[in-house]
Amino acid sequence: MRKQSSRQVVIRDTVIGAEKVLICLPLSAKRKSELLARAGEIIKLGPDLIEWRVDCFEHAREMDKCLLVLRELRKKIGSIPLIFTCRSELEGGQNTMSGPERLELVTGAISTGDVDIADIEMSSGAGFIDRVKEVGEESLCKLILSYHNFDRTPAEEFVVEKLVQAEEMGGDIAKVAVMPQNSGDVLTLLSATCRARTGLVKIPMITMSMGAVGAISRLGGGVFGSDITFATGIDATAPGQLPIGDVRKVMDILD
Amino acid sequence: MRKQSSRQVVIRDTVIGAEKVLICLPLSAKRKSELLARAGEIIKLGPDLIEWRVDCFEHAREMDKCLLVLRELRKKIGSIPLIFTCRSELEGGQNTMSGPERLELVTGAISTGDVDIADIEMSSGAGFIDRVKEVGEESLCKLILSYHNFDRTPAEEFVVEKLVQAEEMGGDIAKVAVMPQNSGDVLTLLSATCRARTGLVKIPMITMSMGAVGAISRLGGGVFGSDITFATGIDATAPGQLPIGDVRKVMDILD
Repeated sequence: MRKQSSRQVVIRDTVIGAEKVLICLPLSAKRKSELLARAGEIIKLGPDLIEWRVDCFEHAREMDKCLLVLRELRKKIGSIPLIFTCRSELEGGQNTMSGPERLELVTGAISTGDVDIADIEMSSGAGFIDRVKEVGEESLCKLILSYHNFDRTPAEEFVVEKLVQAEEMGGDIAKVAVMPQNSGDVLTLLSATCRARTGLVKIPMITMSMGAVGAISRLGGGVFGSDITFATGIDATAPGQLPIGDVRKVMDILD
Repeated sequence: MRKQSSRQVVIRDTVIGAEKVLICLPLSAKRKSELLARAGEIIKLGPDLIEWRVDCFEHAREMDKCLLVLRELRKKIGSIPLIFTCRSELEGGQNTMSGPERLELVTGAISTGDVDIADIEMSSGAGFIDRVKEVGEESLCKLILSYHNFDRTPAEEFVVEKLVQAEEMGGDIAKVAVMPQNSGDVLTLLSATCRARTGLVKIPMITMSMGAVGAISRLGGGVFGSDITFATGIDATAPGQLPIGDVRKVMDILD
């Protein structure tokens, strides 16, 4: 029914960009014990993917500790695809880390083989991205290239451009999350998604209009070309995320 | 949260065009006994409004029989606002009636005082509409002016124009239902609704993109300015209508 990506991303049994819209649950605990306990809880909710927002972890700047947690997290979640994300402060991250620090952490994490997908902001720059891509290819780790704007929704043309750029810069998946000021902004995000999916962007996309007014984009974005939606299991990592049970209910209704 | 109409329509305890998006259930039974039985069933589902699609009734061309059923229907549904609709064949109706026949039936029904809202197609023409309006004012019956296209979705500009025209022609509520060919068409309908609600149209609006691909507009149209959504209790009268329980669930989630 809905338009599928022509360059789907396959991670074990999970196909991103096919008919089914996937649900990702984020983990953003500060402490290791919390993180692992919550991981144990959210896998019971049957998410299609899990994201570890490592920038929320209290020891995000200590590589060794991060990799140890990563190992345990991987064991806990089994074969569920894991997105590893170290968000910069500029785009909503919780930890002050320099670019080189983030690069070292991300490439170190990917090298372990425990990460399926790394989410990198396009604003990190070509050098950063190329290096992650290089390490990722060795470890069969896929790349989300992302753009976030927590203040406003740029023009439709700009959003389309960001999605196109994500593919051009070598991303396997393109992501745009923007904040609406009104319902018109929600339509801007959905229209940009729909236009991008009409031939301009071949890779899977993740797009959302944040906040309460944008909630409809988290429920119905799949109709317009978004392939993954972020919901809450225990942790919410962005405004407007809805409980996974609610999101699944609406998807079933739309099906 | 969502933008309210500046000219709300109040029918007893029901406010159309306020914060709450209302759910209307249609009745389209062929036989009187079925119609009344189904009316009894659907009121248990708690609809905000009920529509009688009289063109589906086997005796739609016999005024006396229609008015008798109308009386019994009114008694059955109590104070729930009733929309009386005699759809023309051209816009999806089930009965071959001439314009004068429809006008006679509609004005006859309104005159009884049992009808709260009459739905009239804008294509019926100014003479037809003015006459209904005249009779309606005497009987405190409100007027929906509607446009339907079961083949396609016209351009955004055209849809906005239809909504504006409904207000200009004296409608208390504007309605547009169009068929999408793809998800872009759904956005056209939602964008037109959103633009119309941003000052161009002051009266409440009912807009929907029909069929499976348009289902999201029946669930989330309220965010963009639509004030009533049609769902199914027992009868479905247009492609893409969803069960009232599902529609209510999604509205609760969006709230």
